[in-house]
Parts: sequence; C-alpha cells; structure tokens
Amino acid sequence: MSDVAKPRFQCRVDRLPMDHPGDMTGLHRLFDDGTLDPASIVAILGKTEGNGCVNDFSRPYAVDSLLWLLADRLGVRPEIVADRVSIIMSGGTEGGLSPHFLVFSVAASSSPSGGSPSLAIGTAFTRDLRPEEIGRIEQVHATAAAVIDAMALADITSPADVHYVQVKCPLLTSGRIAEAHRRGEEVVTENTYASMGFSRGASALGVALALGEIGPDALTPSAIGHDLSLWSRRAGASAGIELTRNEVVVMGNSAGWDGDMSIAHSVMLDAIDVAAVRSALSLLDIPVDGQLAATEADRICAVLAKAEPSRSGVIRGSRHIMWDDSDINATRHARALVGGVIAGIVGRTDLFVSGGAEHQGPDGGGPISIIARKRSSVANESPSS
Amino acid sequence: MSDVAKPRFQCRVDRLPMDHPGDMTGLHRLFDDGTLDPASIVAILGKTEGNGCVNDFSRPYAVDSLLWLLADRLGVRPEIVADRVSIIMSGGTEGGLSPHFLVFSVAASSSPSGGSPSLAIGTAFTRDLRPEEIGRIEQVHATAAAVIDAMALADITSPADVHYVQVKCPLLTSGRIAEAHRRGEEVVTENTYASMGFSRGASALGVALALGEIGPDALTPSAIGHDLSLWSRRAGASAGIELTRNEVVVMGNSAGWDGDMSIAHSVMLDAIDVAAVRSALSLLDIPVDGQLAATEADRICAVLAKAEPSRSGVIRGSRHIMWDDSDINATRHARALVGGVIAGIVGRTDLFVSGGAEHQGPDGGGPISIIARKRSSVANESPSS
Amino acid sequence: MSDVAKPRFQCRVDRLPMDHPGDMTGLHRLFDDGTLDPASIVAILGKTEGNGCVNDFSRPYAVDSLLWLLADRLGVRPEIVADRVSIIMSGGTEGGLSPHFLVFSVAASSSPSGGSPSLAIGTAFTRDLRPEEIGRIEQVHATAAAVIDAMALADITSPADVHYVQVKCPLLTSGRIAEAHRRGEEVVTENTYASMGFSRGASALGVALALGEIGPDALTPSAIGHDLSLWSRRAGASAGIELTRNEVVVMGNSAGWDGDMSIAHSVMLDAIDVAAVRSALSLLDIPVDGQLAATEADRICAVLAKAEPSRSGVIRGSRHIMWDDSDINATRHARALVGGVIAGIVGRTDLFVSGGAEHQGPDGGGPISIIARKRSSVANESPSS
Amino acid sequence: MSDVAKPRFQCRVDRLPMDHPGDMTGLHRLFDDGTLDPASIVAILGKTEGNGCVNDFSRPYAVDSLLWLLADRLGVRPEIVADRVSIIMSGGTEGGLSPHFLVFSVAASSSPSGGSPSLAIGTAFTRDLRPEEIGRIEQVHATAAAVIDAMALADITSPADVHYVQVKCPLLTSGRIAEAHRRGEEVVTENTYASMGFSRGASALGVALALGEIGPDALTPSAIGHDLSLWSRRAGASAGIELTRNEVVVMGNSAGWDGDMSIAHSVMLDAIDVAAVRSALSLLDIPVDGQLAATEADRICAVLAKAEPSRSGVIRGSRHIMWDDSDINATRHARALVGGVIAGIVGRTDLFVSGGAEHQGPDGGGPISIIARKRSSVANESPSS
Repeated sequence: MSDVAKPRFQCRVDRLPMDHPGDMTGLHRLFDDGTLDPASIVAILGKTEGNGCVNDFSRPYAVDSLLWLLADRLGVRPEIVADRVSIIMSGGTEGGLSPHFLVFSVAASSSPSGGSPSLAIGTAFTRDLRPEEIGRIEQVHATAAAVIDAMALADITSPADVHYVQVKCPLLTSGRIAEAHRRGEEVVTENTYASMGFSRGASALGVALALGEIGPDALTPSAIGHDLSLWSRRAGASAGIELTRNEVVVMGNSAGWDGDMSIAHSVMLDAIDVAAVRSALSLLDIPVDGQLAATEADRICAVLAKAEPSRSGVIRGSRHIMWDDSDINATRHARALVGGVIAGIVGRTDLFVSGGAEHQGPDGGGPISIIARKRSSVANESPSS
Repeated sequence: MSDVAKPRFQCRVDRLPMDHPGDMTGLHRLFDDGTLDPASIVAILGKTEGNGCVNDFSRPYAVDSLLWLLADRLGVRPEIVADRVSIIMSGGTEGGLSPHFLVFSVAASSSPSGGSPSLAIGTAFTRDLRPEEIGRIEQVHATAAAVIDAMALADITSPADVHYVQVKCPLLTSGRIAEAHRRGEEVVTENTYASMGFSRGASALGVALALGEIGPDALTPSAIGHDLSLWSRRAGASAGIELTRNEVVVMGNSAGWDGDMSIAHSVMLDAIDVAAVRSALSLLDIPVDGQLAATEADRICAVLAKAEPSRSGVIRGSRHIMWDDSDINATRHARALVGGVIAGIVGRTDLFVSGGAEHQGPDGGGPISIIARKRSSVANESPSS
Repeated sequence: MSDVAKPRFQCRVDRLPMDHPGDMTGLHRLFDDGTLDPASIVAILGKTEGNGCVNDFSRPYAVDSLLWLLADRLGVRPEIVADRVSIIMSGGTEGGLSPHFLVFSVAASSSPSGGSPSLAIGTAFTRDLRPEEIGRIEQVHATAAAVIDAMALADITSPADVHYVQVKCPLLTSGRIAEAHRRGEEVVTENTYASMGFSRGASALGVALALGEIGPDALTPSAIGHDLSLWSRRAGASAGIELTRNEVVVMGNSAGWDGDMSIAHSVMLDAIDVAAVRSALSLLDIPVDGQLAATEADRICAVLAKAEPSRSGVIRGSRHIMWDDSDINATRHARALVGGVIAGIVGRTDLFVSGGAEHQGPDGGGPISIIARKRSSVANESPSS
Repeated sequence: MSDVAKPRFQCRVDRLPMDHPGDMTGLHRLFDDGTLDPASIVAILGKTEGNGCVNDFSRPYAVDSLLWLLADRLGVRPEIVADRVSIIMSGGTEGGLSPHFLVFSVAASSSPSGGSPSLAIGTAFTRDLRPEEIGRIEQVHATAAAVIDAMALADITSPADVHYVQVKCPLLTSGRIAEAHRRGEEVVTENTYASMGFSRGASALGVALALGEIGPDALTPSAIGHDLSLWSRRAGASAGIELTRNEVVVMGNSAGWDGDMSIAHSVMLDAIDVAAVRSALSLLDIPVDGQLAATEADRICAVLAKAEPSRSGVIRGSRHIMWDDSDINATRHARALVGGVIAGIVGRTDLFVSGGAEHQGPDGGGPISIIARKRSSVANESPSS
C-alpha cells in the first residue's frame, strides 16, 4: 500500500459468497478470468460461519486458505502475504447472515468518480506492542498514530471523511504475560480472554482519538474497558492471537480517488435502531420506503455493523435473554438479531455484522457503515457480488 | 366458553413480561388488584425462553405454573383448569425476543366497539383422536370441524373475518403407537419426533380447509407433510405430548363483539419479507414509515408469527447456514432472524414468533397476525402491557 | 426433622428414575401403595436433565413439581413443604448420566442395623444471611454451626463419621446488592453469577471448618474463592436464588440408627481418579475387580460426586478443551467425563455427579460419597431403586 | 505404500498433542531434528476439537494444514500428498478427550520384533464409486476388495491378524445426486446427511465381509443401514465430502514386520463395557488392576474406539438423555461418556474415540483397538508421545 497515491487510483470491492470457510472458488474465478489481479488486494474481510467465540476455527481456516491461495498465485511465502494484506475474519453468521468475503483491492483508475469523492482505503500498522502496553494508553496512542498514517495513504485529510476503521489487534497469552512478568512488568489483566476486550477497547479508543471523537483529556488510563460513555462512531475492532501489533484499515471518501463507490456511516443506538440504518442509506442517496427495492439493494457493496447485547438486559424496556442463555453465547444472539433488523431494511443477508463492541458505539448498539455504488453509476458494469 | 354470546362481550388481551418461565408476578398482580377475573380467562399463549426443541422444559414449567396458579385462585383441581383454558407455550426467544404471556379473557362489554368489528375469540376441541388418525386426513377433518365450532362461538360467520387460528395438537408416543399396533392399525410414522410435524401439518391443513383456503379436492391423504404448496395463511400449530385431541383457538373480528381491539394478518413470503409486516399494520390503520413511532407501537397488543428456515438453503439467493449448524438448531436461528426483522418494523421485541411451520405459509416464510387497539380508542385506558 | 431421635429410627433412600423433570410417577406409586409416608421425607436430591447453568429450568420445574405433589399429599401449602424438606436439584446429566431423584426419609426402625453403624441423616438451617455476609467469613461460620446442629440431630458425634454434607446456599441478586448498598455495606462481588461461586466456596469451607478438615487459623477472609489449597473432603454445595439462608444436610454413619445402609467417602484427586472410587467402595466392603458385578452394583443406593474441569487445562499432562469450548459449558464436559469414569467402575449410570466445586476437593477433582446396603443385608427386601 | 515389502520394515507411531487443529509444532519438530522422514508417513489419524458434526471445520483445517506442511517438506503439490497419505480426522474431543494426531510411518527395520508378530500397516483405495453405488452393495464389495489389497501390502495373510480397519468413504452431495439422476439412476437416499450413515455402514460391512465376520449370504442389499445385527468387530468408518472413493487403512500384526509394537482389539457391548477394554489390554499382556500403572499406560501408543448412543435410550436399564438433548448432539454425549470410561481404565485421555458407528459394533457399543509397545521392549527408546 506504500504507493497508493499520485496517479489516480480506485478501490474495488468484490463480495464473494462462500460455501464453507475454505471455499476459494470465487477468488479463483476472478483470478482465472483476469478480472482481479492478486497483487492489487490490500485487505480481505470475511464473515465465516463458526461460533465467533474462543474455539471458532472457521476463522484461521479461512485465513490460512486465503494466505496459501495468494502465496501460490503471487509466488511468495504465506508469511509475506500476511505482511502485505490485512486479512480479518469475523466468525458468526447466526440467523440469516450469509457467509461471504469482502475483497478490497486498489488499481489504477478505470472508471471516473463522477464528480463526487470516491471510496478510498489505506492500511497501516503500529510498531510491535509489548504485553504490558496492550489494553493500555500506549496501545490507544499507537493505534491513533496508525490511523493518521492510513488516512494519509488514503489521501483523506479530514476525519469527517473517514467512515469505517477496521482494527485487528493482539491479545495477551500466557506466554506473553510470563515474558512481561520476567521483565518486572504488570499486564492489564492476567485473564487471556478478558485481554481481548481490553485490546479491542483500547484500539477503538485510539480510533476515536485520531478522528477527534474523543478529546485527549477525556482519555484517562482507567477509562479503557470501563467508561463505556466513551466510544467511537466508526471503529470496528477484533483481536487475533497471531498478532503482536495493531493493523488498521481506514475507509472513507476522497476527492483524490476515482471509482463508482462511496461510503457512509451512522450509529445504531440500540439493536433495533432502524432509523440509523436508514440514515446511512440516505447519506448514500439510497431511498428507502420499507425495504429497499431490488435495484437499490444491488447498489450496496458492503454493510459493516457491530452487534452487542445490551448490558442492561433490556431492549426498550423489554427483557432479552441473551446473557442468561448458557447454551448459546450472548454475542451469537446479538448478531442474529442485528442481522435480521438490517436485512429487513436492505433486503439482503450478506452483511458483515460482528460482535465484541467495547467502546464501539453505545451499550447495546454500534456503528454501521455502508459502501454503495453511486447513483449515477448504477447502470455501469460492476464488480462481482 | 360455552356461553360467550348474546349479551355483548369483549375480548381483553394482557401482555405480561416474565422474568422466568415460572414467573407469575404479572398475573398475581392483575388478580390481586381486581383488574382481571381468573374465571374470565379462555386462553394463554406464551413465549418461554427454552430451546423450543425436544428438551425444552420451560414450556411445561410455565404450563404447570399457570395451571397451579389458576387452580388455586379458582378453587378447583389443575386438571379442571386444563380442560377449560387453552394454554399454549412456544419455546424459544432467540435474538432479541422477549419472554411474555398473552392472556386472553372474555368479559361483559365495558368499552364500545366504536362502530367497527372488534376482536372476537372462540375455542373448541376435537373428539379424541386415535393414534392412527394423527397426521392423517381424519385429523384434518376433525380440526376443520373444530374451527367451524370455534368460529360460531366467536360469532364470526365469514372465514374472511378469521385472522389467526392457534391449534394445539397431539403427537405419537411409543405407547400410543404400540396401542394402535395391538389393534392392527398402522400409524403415519413410527418416529415420535416426526409425528409432531405430521400432526402440526394435518392441523394446519384442517384450518385451511375450514377457512376455504384449500378446496377439499386438493387435499389428498398423501399431501400431508409432503405437498408444501398447500398451506394456510392463518394457522399456527404446535404439538404437545399431553394432548389426545386438538385444541383450537380462533381469533377474528366480529360485529357482535365490543372492545377497542381488532386483528389483521398477512403472510411473509420469506424470512425478511418486511412488506408483509407493513401490510398487516396497514390493515390495522397503523401508519409505518421506517419503524413505528412509539405511540403507534403502543397500540400493538400482540404479534403472532411463524418462522422457519427455508429448505432451499438460501434467502433471496444468499446461502444461510441454519441447516448446517450442529450447535444451534435451525429453528432457533429462524426465530432470531424473523424476530429481528419484525422488531425492526414495530419497534418492540415482545413478539410471539414460533417455529414448526408445516403447511403454515410458504417455505421459509409464514403467517403473521397482529392484534392492535383501534385508532379511535388509543386515548382510552388500556389493559396492562 | 425435629423429632428424629430417641426411639430408634432408620433412614430410607429411594432412588427413582424420571422421564422428565416433572415426572412424579415414582413418588406417586410409592405413596399410593403405602410403601412411603410423604410425611417421613426429609430431603430430596435430584439430577435433572437441564444444562446445569444459568437458564436450567429443569431444576425449578422439578422442585415445584415436588412441592406441589407433597403439598397435595400432606394437605398443606407448598411453602410449608419448602420449609420442612430440603429439596436440592443438580442440573446436567451429560454423557450417560441418568436423571433420577434420591428421596431420603426417616421412619421408625424396621430393620436392625446388623451390629454396625447405619446411615444417619440430619438437616439444619443457618439464620438468614445478609447480602454482605454471603461469600464471606460470616457465611463460613454460620454454615459450620449448622453442620454441628445437623450432626447432633443425626446423632453423629465424631466428624470422622460424617461422609457427605450437602449445602444449599443463597446468591446475590441485583436487588440484594442494592439493599446492602442502601445500608452502606459492600458485597463480596457485584457480579451475580460470580456470587454463586463465592457462596458455594464459603459454604464448603464452613463444612471443612465444622469437620475439622481446616483449622480456624487457616481461614483468612481473603482465602474464600481464592486459596484453592483449602478444601473439604465431604462438602457438596449448590447455590439457589430462592434462598436467604443456608440449608445443610449431613449424612454419616451412627450407632444410634438402624437400617441396612451405610455411607463412605473418598476424594478424587483428578477427573480420572479411579483409585478414589475403588477406595470408597472398599470402605463399604464392596469388592471391585474391573467393574462391579451386577449383584454388587445393586447394593449401591446412591453415588454423590463433584466434577470440575481442572483450571490447569490438562489432565495428567494432556490438554483438555473444556475451557475453550464456547458451544458446551465446561461444567457440562466435566460431568460427562466424571460420570463415565465412575460408571465404568460401578456399572451403573444413575449417579449424582454435580458441578461447581469451589473448595470441594482439589482442582479438577472432588469428593465422592457412596451409600450402599450392608453386605449382610443384601438378601433382605429393599427400597425401590 | 506400494513398496512396503521384502526388506524388513517396521511401523512407527507418533502420538502428537495439538494446541489447535492447525498446530503443526509436533511434526515440525520431528522433521527438524531428523527423527521422522516426511516421506515415510503413510497415514495420519487425528482427533480434532470441533463438534464432529456437519459444521466441524476443525477437520478440514487440520487436513489442509497437514497437506500444506507435507507438500512444503516434500516439495510437491498438496494434491500429490493427498493421493499418497491417508489423512483422516475425527472431530469431537468432548469430556476429557485430548486432541492429538497419530502419525503412522513405515521405515526400514531398526528394532527387532523380539520374536513375536509386530504392528503392520497397509493402505489401499477402491476405484471411484458412482453416486448410485454409495451405501449400496457395490460399495460393500469394493471396500472388501480394498481391504484384501491392503492386507496383502501389510503382509497379513489371516483375517485373524487384522485388528483395526479405518475406512474413509464418500458421501452424496446435491451435485452428485443430480448427476446420477441425469443418467436415470436412483441413489440410496436424497438426504445428504443420511448418506453419510449409509456410506459408513456399507464400508463397515465391506470390512466385515473381507474379514469373514459376515458371510456373503447374510448380506442382502436391504440390510445396509437397517439390519443392525450385522456388524464388524474391527471397522472404523468416517465419511468425507472430498472423496469419490473409499480409502482403507488396515492395521494388524505380522511376522513379516519388525518393531516393538503390536495391536489387539475387542468389542464394547455397551458404552460402559469395561470388560472389553480390559480384554484388549490383556491380549497385549498389559496387566490391569483398577487403572493402569503409569509405566503400563506409557506402553500404550494409540487407543481407537467407536462411541454411539444406544438407540434403546437406556444403558443397562437406566435412561440416558443423549437423543433428547437439542443443545448437544447425541454423538457428542457418547464420545464424552466412552472417553471417560476408557480413560478410567488406561489412565490417559489422548484416546481416538469417534462417533458414527453404523454396523461397527452392536447398538450402543463399538470396537476398541489398542496399539502398544511389547512388554519386552518397554525399556527401549521410543517414538515421541
């Protein structure tokens, strides 16, 4: 991504259905018919059909399948691919959610922007984070710096033009905790599962800081993971055991980019906040009366949303049972619910609805970002979806 | 219910939240403060928070709690209550669905109808069904006859005025199958779990027959459980091990009833068919633009819908994973999804969404019925909800 | 239990299978044929087939069914029964475990002891515990006092003759926590689920204190829930939301009791500690070579054991996945495993294996107590099982 | 495997623990330190930690990880590895079962047999099976022929010397069913999930036929999947979507092989049949009194067993709830139970207990095979475990 700049570029988004987490059929076809250049891929987001919790092997299975496929096509080792492409899988397609990959690639401009800013993408990394920095203010600041870097690469100058920031962040393992202890350092928590939430939370606050959603003064170290009144409107964070640093993918609109797509966002204030979904659609000039007409639904290239059970145990005063169900994890209920709410409006089920929303939207709600083709360009040829 | 007739009556619906399946707090309060006469109750529907599958003990726990409470209040044995009141629990409040009871009672008119037909209710039973009749044409005809009886009690003459028919039906047990065998009879299936589907299907077809949705000629014996092109637009059926006959609860609108409520229905053609939900609301003169305004949502007394995963494995062309998930039963996914879709429109989560929809709506869809207070009466005092 | 004393008594144990948690068939039959006097029942333990976790409604369903049945038979209100009979349900019959009730009753001696001490039982209650006392040293001391009381009622003077102490204890609810806060008091945890573990742990330590397993000096307040090197060899504790005080059931052997049964115990040091099971059997003079012969298995009236996944994540050096499985709760895996290990030895599956073993045996292990008919009495008539 | 013959060979078994299904650490180490030649591997069996049901992605994730690793080490494409090495993953490590790989390799003799027959292994394939042959007599006969081939390669002449036959077999997919229909052929079932059972059953009957456990006359076409009185004592079959033919791995003892290991088997008649486990151990000259002593447990290199819930719904007369639990699949309960029973005897939890036992042992039971180092050789150096 280091040279995503002066000659005009455009971002392409391919939405590929999958029959199982290792199903590479869609990518193979795009590569084989010359539609997509493997070297142009900068990020792949995927909704895989595991449980989205601790033992969700649909995620690493999909990641490894993608790495091996790209390595094979590019003639490099998988480790090299992992260094160059942000691959972020979110497990859990409960309810009607449909497993799919979102493949983001950057190529020389082939379709004009039509006069309005177009979808722009930039990726960046933090330095390696020490175990004692995870879930702490150091991770917040490192993430904020990476967001600024990625914005620059994406040629986005105003935070107002950023509409989605995906962060992939490390977690604490027993080994990392021990290593910190050997150096006499304390970690934020010795519970490895809990460390995922702290890392996601610190990452989301880093996004909020970079985008000016929260002022630096509001950010006391003790707020991380605790003061849920602080949240980003545009962050989506997930923790992965294989990382030692934060990966950041910034998406927004830029006059410096070409292409027929743009992005907008809103924030669902609770799990059934349809008004927020409609608001994001309106910003994309997609009229909605009830459910989107099929022609309008076709314009949508990606829906990226967060789902979390409200800690209050109620939705608009009515009790939900998500926290009480020992057979189905609460986050699984939440994804099914939010997926249904959004599908009702947009009329499609291939939605990237993910869980684990610490500091990402208010309690029980979450950010929602939508990428769509511009109205003027709907008649044009479009990438696979 | 034998005397629900000449002096004008009205149907009352109390929607009571529950903290657990044995939570009788709401009913106790209504009884204690004199709001509701225990003897006036004719039917109780409930969404309880179990898995809705084989080992869902939230259903019998709620049923027994209701029976013992009513028996205690009325000074009779629980068996007597069970004979007089239709108590039908549907397990499964996945996603955001909120556990609740719907208590239907009939009392002398206290609020006028306002000139339009009002919600009317009638209950009836079939004769005891022999094991070899379950899931067969005999059950279809017996159910149809009971629907006609219940319509008469509800003072509903035209099938067009019926908008919901809840049926509770028996299933085959090992003991009942053996008893049939001793008499030299064959049963529709020797799989007790499969018998539930056959019994629900035959019951739904009985409703369809009584309401003229299907002509008698279309109903060949082999169609039951197999020809899914035959379905009722208004039936909701559930099977219970404790029954030896069908119980039928008919709801509709009648000029012979008073009260401030009416009922309407539609059919969801797939799991995300928002147009059907909006259609039913329109029929009740409830304007919907996006999500119901809170004042309009308050008018809704009950939402009764069916949810089933499409057998095709797709929703509008996108794969769903409901049938492939060996950790969460497919019907649980479906309820969460349909609950989310409807909650998005009506803005509330205390919805009676149930599974097991053989011959109840098309594949992947299902009937939806809504009970609401009439527009003119919104300002009036209303039952607890 | 107030008059369980001077004339010689004997304890009877009926082990009753159940087809579902509300299945009272076995008790009805015993009452109807005059075998068992409802008034003689002092305690009922049951393994029900729910998930044994938060939303396990098989437990209250069974409890309520028992209360209503006994109330009906005794002509009193269910609340009176609840005050007089200890009814303790443990959810979870994973693997091959078979749902069953263990009904403990006390009646005048009808069969001699055969010269050796016989099974004796005593029950007692603590005073009501304030929220701030739960999971704290106050609960430890109150429980210890109740154990002493119950031992006296059971005519057991030496702690060495106590072989099982079942404790049912309260937990913290949001309401109780708020009540304590209003009085300016702090509670041990504001997490209601976590309070169950603290309450069980304090209760188990109370048993250990009463039986001299732990000296009072070892018991610092901070040890509760934390210092897992402190544990009882004979305590089994479960927390229930309906309680405000601890209920204690002590079982042991006493020369003051008649009857053909006795009890012994051992401690499984890990989940596959077969030697401990064999040790308990040996103490009962039950020879075991491989699996018990059927005639010896028939002598066993009850097996009471605790199961917990080891916190280390390994069993004898091999990794287990119990803590990593987000689809099946860790305690469910543990019960299935320990049930299999014990069933392999005793050759039967109606075993009372329960989870939640804080301070009840070492990490990954737990106490096991066995009640059996004495060798000399095997030929005699026996209670139903 | 084509040249496993004239110069004397020996079979090596490495049992490797895994931290997750993609954990190749153990193999990497063996390759890196020169202990194991990647080219010598003929079969890998693995217990992975998924649910063992439809959406168990731990299996293909492990298979792909192994294929890519071996391809990388051998400098060939993964497809070539898949053709040469039998890789068979069984999902489900419920209860205390520990995830592990069993790596079978064949190399020139380095340790003498000590005078008794040693563990021998042979693999073979059937021709490709047409969809209409799956679950039918053609698959039975093709499997039997492959078993005979594999026995020859393993230098085993008497069926009595065969002690385990692992079969991996294809299943019907929608595509394969359609292809058969286009040719005017009918398949055994149009239910793809049910086809797995038919394919496993036909494969097991093929083993039984080859080993003379069932005479050809007993094998009527209608028996497959229906007449459960027909079963193999040594077959273990699993179905995989990636196959179009049967893969067969035969293990037995042969005087033509060297090495310090041998194999024996028995049949568990129900899930708690400890006598069968002890019988297999005795055949290997492993004394068992209660649980194996650690030194004896160390001799055991692999335990291969089948687990299935009894269709009767009882174990020795006591009800089990495996079929009634809609939250946990019945096969998961069964593995946890049988794993506990066997672990109790052998004192270790890294056991290959798999489900899906059609025609593999009697209802509720299953074959058990054990590979162990010979008594005389215990003191010698041994492969990693």
